[in-house]
Amino acid sequence: MIAARVMRAMATPVFGHLDPAFIPLLDDVRERLKRLFQAPEGSFMFAMSGTGTSGMEATIANLVRDGTRVLAVVTGYFGEQLVEMCRRYRATVSRVDGEWGRAVDPEAVRVALRTSGTGAIDVVACVHAETSTGVLNPIREIAALAREHDALTLVDVVTSLGRHPVDVKGWALDAVYSCTQKCIGAPSGMSPVAWTPLAHSRRVASRSFYFDITLLEDYWVRRKYHHTLSSTLIYALHEALVALEEEGLENRWERHRRHHLALVRGLEAMGLHLLPPAADRLWTVNAVRVPPGIDEAAIRRRIVDRILDRNWRRPRSPGRQDLAGGPDGIQFDAPLLLLFLSALEHVLRTAGYKCIPGAGVSAASDALASEGEIERAGQPS
Amino acid sequence: MIAARVMRAMATPVFGHLDPAFIPLLDDVRERLKRLFQAPEGSFMFAMSGTGTSGMEATIANLVRDGTRVLAVVTGYFGEQLVEMCRRYRATVSRVDGEWGRAVDPEAVRVALRTSGTGAIDVVACVHAETSTGVLNPIREIAALAREHDALTLVDVVTSLGRHPVDVKGWALDAVYSCTQKCIGAPSGMSPVAWTPLAHSRRVASRSFYFDITLLEDYWVRRKYHHTLSSTLIYALHEALVALEEEGLENRWERHRRHHLALVRGLEAMGLHLLPPAADRLWTVNAVRVPPGIDEAAIRRRIVDRILDRNWRRPRSPGRQDLAGGPDGIQFDAPLLLLFLSALEHVLRTAGYKCIPGAGVSAASDALASEGEIERAGQPS
Repeated sequence: MIAARVMRAMATPVFGHLDPAFIPLLDDVRERLKRLFQAPEGSFMFAMSGTGTSGMEATIANLVRDGTRVLAVVTGYFGEQLVEMCRRYRATVSRVDGEWGRAVDPEAVRVALRTSGTGAIDVVACVHAETSTGVLNPIREIAALAREHDALTLVDVVTSLGRHPVDVKGWALDAVYSCTQKCIGAPSGMSPVAWTPLAHSRRVASRSFYFDITLLEDYWVRRKYHHTLSSTLIYALHEALVALEEEGLENRWERHRRHHLALVRGLEAMGLHLLPPAADRLWTVNAVRVPPGIDEAAIRRRIVDRILDRNWRRPRSPGRQDLAGGPDGIQFDAPLLLLFLSALEHVLRTAGYKCIPGAGVSAASDALASEGEIERAGQPS
Repeated sequence: MIAARVMRAMATPVFGHLDPAFIPLLDDVRERLKRLFQAPEGSFMFAMSGTGTSGMEATIANLVRDGTRVLAVVTGYFGEQLVEMCRRYRATVSRVDGEWGRAVDPEAVRVALRTSGTGAIDVVACVHAETSTGVLNPIREIAALAREHDALTLVDVVTSLGRHPVDVKGWALDAVYSCTQKCIGAPSGMSPVAWTPLAHSRRVASRSFYFDITLLEDYWVRRKYHHTLSSTLIYALHEALVALEEEGLENRWERHRRHHLALVRGLEAMGLHLLPPAADRLWTVNAVRVPPGIDEAAIRRRIVDRILDRNWRRPRSPGRQDLAGGPDGIQFDAPLLLLFLSALEHVLRTAGYKCIPGAGVSAASDALASEGEIERAGQPS
């Protein structure tokens, strides 16, 4: 769900990527990204023209070359993808493997770094919010260890930036990338990146032209042609960043924490359990264990096809309808949460799962009400 | 100027890139791209998530590796960019340099290929429509020569596809990329690519993960996650392709040829001259020689700031306005052409340039009227 104001921003007439009238907006995006990432002075803030995966490759392409020694912390699919990409750029990759569904133990990272010795690892690569398992990794601790051993950190904040605290300066992160369509609230297509002075001082010559940080800086800072940035996607990103600052970064984190806790309360009341232990959980992705005998893919399909579609996603023919349906995404989380629990209960019980009817919605609703969420949910901001 | 229908399509609710409801639209985009490129059966049609530059790198990343022998035909900035990218992927690049502002002579390509010998060149890389000089290169002839010498062709059709004939099958092209924001009429952000079976049979292992054609095919054909395609940009691309087919591909080519000829008539009536000779000219980019004593950058700035803005581009605060201003881009070419000539005359005369007042607009208007363009221009499609 994208906020209506962000969708409307995309209807702004298309400015050229070097049009003098477009440049102030671009500069404002860079300033807002700097505050969102909490990046140190002198960082190069930009958004890669592509998805989060393009941001991942952009940071790697400028820090990794033949023989660069990377320590990759792997706790899920996206950790594996970091390894894969670093190998393609011919890094020598060593790994710290954590159990999938658990946050990595910083002690394991300490041991790996100590075993290698100070200066023996160039880059520690890690995913902050591992989408594939719903786990939040202790990036602050990992980054502190990396700094002790004179290694840079390359960090994926695709599923955290904007909904979990991320503090590039305070945690001493170096090359950090995200995406627009998860926690920032704009459509997919751009990958915001924080590239600190320290990362810049240790950059390598990029093999890639598209991902070359020097050429990207030529455009974003020095206004020289490199590629044709999509002003349309920048309008959306800008509006999403404005909305985020209007709500307040800390308020947004807190809102997602509350919603996560209410959802967990509801799931538990239905007898369901999350994969990660409570302390390791993301607020943004809730990985639920599938009860015995339940066909998970069929359950998901039924929720999407038969329940959510009817209420929120009509019409089903993109390109044939003028206006976005449904209420404003920003205000929409609490009602959607209850709708989802109701739908999940319905399809699970239809599939033979036993739980107390209404228990999930009721428990989550109580949790939301105790925080004043339900009353607030319907009001305009 | 993007057509209002394309802008509206982007307001369609955001579907997930693997949502079953989204897949038919994606398949339809592939079919339409196949017709637009006139690609042979079995071609992999897709749109790279990024700008035209990303499409350029995607084709190179999958055809060029250490030691690949590339013959690059260079007649302008984008030809140089092809050389630069191929070198970054460690190709051995030889060049055919044409005069900037002229189409390359196929004979020069023949000599270069003959000198190298059959099988000695793996890839002939060339820009069809050289944006930097307004020149159309004879790709058909070049591709025929490449085929004779058993080389693949890698072709940039960024400024031609949709407004000049491009015939991937008929001309025997192999890896061909474009962009969305020039001749297709959607916002920037995607790069349509035609990847033929022959290109596929000679692909190399991609160093890049983001640009890996096998992983891209995993997503576009086999529905496996690779990156989060922007459904918003696909809605826009789809609607632009629908609009293009409604007008008819050949009608659109012809319309742009007519407008180009009318613009040239107007420019010549003002005593101005184009850089390329008539036979080498693009219909899509008209490169005008700057008269002696005229500050070209100042002229452009004044046209944008003081004339076009007032009429067509208000408001100047993106993200603060709900609807795209101005009429539908598809119908807009003829009036804009006259407005442009009027603005150009005004700023040139203010800068001291001598020409007969009204001569440019009048000549272009006559040319448009003789084709029935002016009457048609204001009518809805």
